[in-house]
Amino acid sequence: MSEPRTALVVSAHAADFVWRCGGAIALHASLGYRVTVVCLSFGERGESAKLWKQPGMTLERVKDARRAEAERAAEALGVHDLVCMDLGDYPLRLDDGDKGRLVDVIRDVQPSFMLSHSRYDPYNTDHMYATEVVLECRMIAQAWGHNPGQKVVGAPQLYLFEPHQTEQMGWKPDVFLDITPVWDRKRAAIECMEGQEHLWDYYTRLAENRANHFRRNSGGQAGGRAAKYAEGFQSVFPRTVDEL
Amino acid sequence: MSEPRTALVVSAHAADFVWRCGGAIALHASLGYRVTVVCLSFGERGESAKLWKQPGMTLERVKDARRAEAERAAEALGVHDLVCMDLGDYPLRLDDGDKGRLVDVIRDVQPSFMLSHSRYDPYNTDHMYATEVVLECRMIAQAWGHNPGQKVVGAPQLYLFEPHQTEQMGWKPDVFLDITPVWDRKRAAIECMEGQEHLWDYYTRLAENRANHFRRNSGGQAGGRAAKYAEGFQSVFPRTVDEL
Amino acid sequence: MSEPRTALVVSAHAADFVWRCGGAIALHASLGYRVTVVCLSFGERGESAKLWKQPGMTLERVKDARRAEAERAAEALGVHDLVCMDLGDYPLRLDDGDKGRLVDVIRDVQPSFMLSHSRYDPYNTDHMYATEVVLECRMIAQAWGHNPGQKVVGAPQLYLFEPHQTEQMGWKPDVFLDITPVWDRKRAAIECMEGQEHLWDYYTRLAENRANHFRRNSGGQAGGRAAKYAEGFQSVFPRTVDEL
Amino acid sequence: MSEPRTALVVSAHAADFVWRCGGAIALHASLGYRVTVVCLSFGERGESAKLWKQPGMTLERVKDARRAEAERAAEALGVHDLVCMDLGDYPLRLDDGDKGRLVDVIRDVQPSFMLSHSRYDPYNTDHMYATEVVLECRMIAQAWGHNPGQKVVGAPQLYLFEPHQTEQMGWKPDVFLDITPVWDRKRAAIECMEGQEHLWDYYTRLAENRANHFRRNSGGQAGGRAAKYAEGFQSVFPRTVDEL
Amino acid sequence: MSEPRTALVVSAHAADFVWRCGGAIALHASLGYRVTVVCLSFGERGESAKLWKQPGMTLERVKDARRAEAERAAEALGVHDLVCMDLGDYPLRLDDGDKGRLVDVIRDVQPSFMLSHSRYDPYNTDHMYATEVVLECRMIAQAWGHNPGQKVVGAPQLYLFEPHQTEQMGWKPDVFLDITPVWDRKRAAIECMEGQEHLWDYYTRLAENRANHFRRNSGGQAGGRAAKYAEGFQSVFPRTVDEL
Amino acid sequence: MSEPRTALVVSAHAADFVWRCGGAIALHASLGYRVTVVCLSFGERGESAKLWKQPGMTLERVKDARRAEAERAAEALGVHDLVCMDLGDYPLRLDDGDKGRLVDVIRDVQPSFMLSHSRYDPYNTDHMYATEVVLECRMIAQAWGHNPGQKVVGAPQLYLFEPHQTEQMGWKPDVFLDITPVWDRKRAAIECMEGQEHLWDYYTRLAENRANHFRRNSGGQAGGRAAKYAEGFQSVFPRTVDEL
Repeated sequence: MSEPRTALVVSAHAADFVWRCGGAIALHASLGYRVTVVCLSFGERGESAKLWKQPGMTLERVKDARRAEAERAAEALGVHDLVCMDLGDYPLRLDDGDKGRLVDVIRDVQPSFMLSHSRYDPYNTDHMYATEVVLECRMIAQAWGHNPGQKVVGAPQLYLFEPHQTEQMGWKPDVFLDITPVWDRKRAAIECMEGQEHLWDYYTRLAENRANHFRRNSGGQAGGRAAKYAEGFQSVFPRTVDEL
Repeated sequence: MSEPRTALVVSAHAADFVWRCGGAIALHASLGYRVTVVCLSFGERGESAKLWKQPGMTLERVKDARRAEAERAAEALGVHDLVCMDLGDYPLRLDDGDKGRLVDVIRDVQPSFMLSHSRYDPYNTDHMYATEVVLECRMIAQAWGHNPGQKVVGAPQLYLFEPHQTEQMGWKPDVFLDITPVWDRKRAAIECMEGQEHLWDYYTRLAENRANHFRRNSGGQAGGRAAKYAEGFQSVFPRTVDEL
Repeated sequence: MSEPRTALVVSAHAADFVWRCGGAIALHASLGYRVTVVCLSFGERGESAKLWKQPGMTLERVKDARRAEAERAAEALGVHDLVCMDLGDYPLRLDDGDKGRLVDVIRDVQPSFMLSHSRYDPYNTDHMYATEVVLECRMIAQAWGHNPGQKVVGAPQLYLFEPHQTEQMGWKPDVFLDITPVWDRKRAAIECMEGQEHLWDYYTRLAENRANHFRRNSGGQAGGRAAKYAEGFQSVFPRTVDEL
Repeated sequence: MSEPRTALVVSAHAADFVWRCGGAIALHASLGYRVTVVCLSFGERGESAKLWKQPGMTLERVKDARRAEAERAAEALGVHDLVCMDLGDYPLRLDDGDKGRLVDVIRDVQPSFMLSHSRYDPYNTDHMYATEVVLECRMIAQAWGHNPGQKVVGAPQLYLFEPHQTEQMGWKPDVFLDITPVWDRKRAAIECMEGQEHLWDYYTRLAENRANHFRRNSGGQAGGRAAKYAEGFQSVFPRTVDEL
Repeated sequence: MSEPRTALVVSAHAADFVWRCGGAIALHASLGYRVTVVCLSFGERGESAKLWKQPGMTLERVKDARRAEAERAAEALGVHDLVCMDLGDYPLRLDDGDKGRLVDVIRDVQPSFMLSHSRYDPYNTDHMYATEVVLECRMIAQAWGHNPGQKVVGAPQLYLFEPHQTEQMGWKPDVFLDITPVWDRKRAAIECMEGQEHLWDYYTRLAENRANHFRRNSGGQAGGRAAKYAEGFQSVFPRTVDEL
Repeated sequence: MSEPRTALVVSAHAADFVWRCGGAIALHASLGYRVTVVCLSFGERGESAKLWKQPGMTLERVKDARRAEAERAAEALGVHDLVCMDLGDYPLRLDDGDKGRLVDVIRDVQPSFMLSHSRYDPYNTDHMYATEVVLECRMIAQAWGHNPGQKVVGAPQLYLFEPHQTEQMGWKPDVFLDITPVWDRKRAAIECMEGQEHLWDYYTRLAENRANHFRRNSGGQAGGRAAKYAEGFQSVFPRTVDEL
């Protein structure tokens, strides 16, 4: 029996993987992929405003709450492994040891493809920093001389998932994924994010509008599949194919 | 029995389709696609220097020679239909009637995908003009109110094939196609271009180097298929997929 | 009593002004602006698929239906003057006389600002052509030697309204307008577009999501006005101000 | 009585705020804003060539001279608070503690808008580093979990002021500010920069030419206000408005 | 004795060559180049506001005045041949015959290099149209099959001269030319432009500031030649060299 | 007797200078330049896969082998001084002391021009990091207050040499150098790179194709020198000239 295929998501903060690629995670899980999600931080300082407005809140309590939300969401999506690296946010920073741990994860997972943030984000420098680190660690994971004996990785595609306010980030999707079959799972995961309820409907509307884009590009007014929910991604590297 | 799939190439001058996507044509022909090639002109004025250096040359003789070369190359590649529109070059111009004829071809072919030039080319304005026209005619071919009763087209991808001096054109390939199985056919077609013998080895070397790029992106130093010849393309529109 | 301020919208097809800047029209009408809308075509060939699927349809009937829709929508929005130039679509083309007529409109209106399409649109070349023409005609309208004696225009801003699939068009909004007070009028105008019912909810969701962007940029999580519906625009020219 | 409005300038070296936004500072001071200027360094190593050409010069003497110049210039412009962080230049570097101090300043000031350098500068990496840090610290200042209890900031605009050799930096102004009423103050501040006398007239000519751009964009040949001196700025974030 | 070297300037309107490359013309004339200037139009409608404000002005009188100014300026600069094509402005348009005439000029001149406008200009579409035509005609002039028997041109560089408001045009200079030795001639030519006196000092200040950029790039604070006046240009094509 | 001219190459890994600018090095050495090459690392972890596949390999043995290859290649090219900084790769990192050493080299060499990597490289973050550091250290080397008493540098051009997969890096050459006279030396240097034999022919083909580009830009079909091998470079800064 062949090995199951794998995918790796690197999320700057605990909730990013839900809004931005929850559908891709659930869909590939349903296709038999083992999907690993790395949360570099919990978003405890910068993305937990609702919690901090409660009296007597502490950093540990925020982190616990965010971790619990992320775990429930991961379960809803069928995540194979959720790795919380707890590196701190606003700002997020990885030292050489932290990067080494991320390289280990990449090599352990041997992903068919990876997912992370847009390359630019003036609103949230953690996001663009995460992608910078992912590119660096992907390169290290390919190096035969880094921890010789470990299995190096090949050349997995890196997809950049959808940021908030795409146009400001210079993010341009070149692939739309039909997530209709797993929409219920994504919505369930979204609803685990209790601290950011104002975004539940935002990302639902977005998925519906992206499905319109899916249909425009799959067949336009002459047909095209009736996708109801979709996600968009931007590829960093060229594809290699046997047929256009 | 289902209809064979189809593809459509729009080439500004008679030889462009050979250098730039001869491999894609031959490969898809070998996969059972019916590939139609439209040559908007013969490149009779601007891309036939060697012929014009012969004494007593006339425009008609140049066009005849270029047509013959194109026909031989098309045969070598397995082109289903070669359409020579003979619209003149340097500069190439299409009036509304010419565009209507191109729309008819698009609708007749109902291509799964289309191929044409890069969007920018300061060396050769015919090239960028051809792509401008292709986008316009693709749009018209989608219009239910253009020649009502004809079958409209859906949303075929438009791939931009490789220009000469890619970096000057702002062309960036996002897909590499392995053309190793049909390389002999492409080389044979290239050798039909007797007037441009200085480019035979240029495009052979290019195909070998693009195969290196194929390998880098398919598996890098950890493996990847042993492609020996490849072509690169830039997609205009996003893809729609069920799996990343 | 001072003259009322004015604005000018140039729409390639009859419905574009509704989806893309209906809120801006209604809002400025409510502020006392006289808003003129120029529809260069009815979108009769390319944007009326639903009508063409009806048996026995003719070009005139489609145009009549589209004109009627546009008139109802204009009324709902409080448009001061709707100018249907009926120049044909797919492709849209203006000859020198047509451009002269558009220059006359610009000079008659003396707009405080103008609105038109994005600069790039590979899906719909009519859209980018419209903006190309608007820039050309704005320039002619500024020329003291064009129809000397007419009043020249100053330097009105040109805002590019939101295209479909913004990222593919390279469109980046630099201003968000709160259209909450006039949302009902925009929705009413949208519902006049009977032939494109599949877009009613699309553009409603879009307006809600743009309001989220409005809030992010007006105050973020620390406050910011509770806009519920917004539209985004991209400025072509710099602003001139007395205070940042 | 309401609080006075505030603005915050972050200048990599001691003189940058004078050349690049001295007019904006003086103008907003005259409008009642309290303007805080942070000088991250004195430019003591890299922007004090004239001083270093004097015999027996020391780093402390250069810093003292540059501080004195900056203080005189700040006074001439009506700066409310001049904060010299003395972090060193060529290269400028901020550690986490330094960034924390800058975040404190941002939160204390609660600026209506901020001003800093262009995003790219191959001649002077301190400049682009400063803007990178400003974006990061603005984000941290917005985080409810950073020093809970402090007042977070909203979403102040960040304007990028004019670099030297704008085209090489990819800097594009989208707003021109008329600084005619305060030109005398800017020129007086410029003349405080004794070590860089070769730039006095350079920046005077620049202000006059920017005023020409102001007029072109405010009314062109048909009028427009008679601004004699202006400054240009590039906005990082979209504006939010109630009227176009 | 060898042939003198030649250069060709293509100016959309009669005055453009003076402001934008008058120094380059005079300098190369002084070096022995024969410089041909083609004015596609007189700028009679759009760039002669001052004349049109005079009572009783007619198109012919404006054209005569503009021609006279251009001739005086050309003489001041040492232009070898001034070709006024009188094709009309606002908008400028060339039909196939007009382009043929321009191709003839290019072939007659056999320029070492060419000069024309920036590739983009939303304020003045004539400018970008001129460069579009220059690229097209340069290509035709290279075609062995266009008027066989005429001498084709090689691959002359096309330099884009400085537009007004460079940053809005996306124009980035990659070469600065020291025009100090011929500044008096450029200023004299500028003063021939009586109808645009408001620009005399603007372009003088610009030349002084470009000289600062010259010095920054030739030697910076460690030296560099004492250029007092300079012009900047953007190259379209790569250079070919024997030494970096 | 005047001082010989000098040039400085900064190579992230030991072999980069051979593939990417070996021709420029050998050519300028043959012209009398003293060319210094700095290898920031040996590429021991990430660019030595073939060595690591040998049993019992150690980091020191890889570094020794790579150093030996680099020394042989440098000798073949006529490098004046090869500086191996041994800073580690995958990832490459320079602390302040390392940067100080690089600044010392720049000041010692006083280069007429510098050469380094492309500004962007998602495949190899060491490459873009090297150029980032080069820009920073070039700036420090210009600072009069950095190690006062040392001779500061002027404004040497920085050429970015050719990366692998140019289009993915956004690298655009603006100068082509004819390396035909020294091709044998470059090929000899290439063959010193025993660990990367798969690239020998790749870079030979590339040099031949770049020579085609050289000819296209020097004279096109109307002539142009018969360069057989060439290299391309992208300039960071504008040139300053006395003649176009």
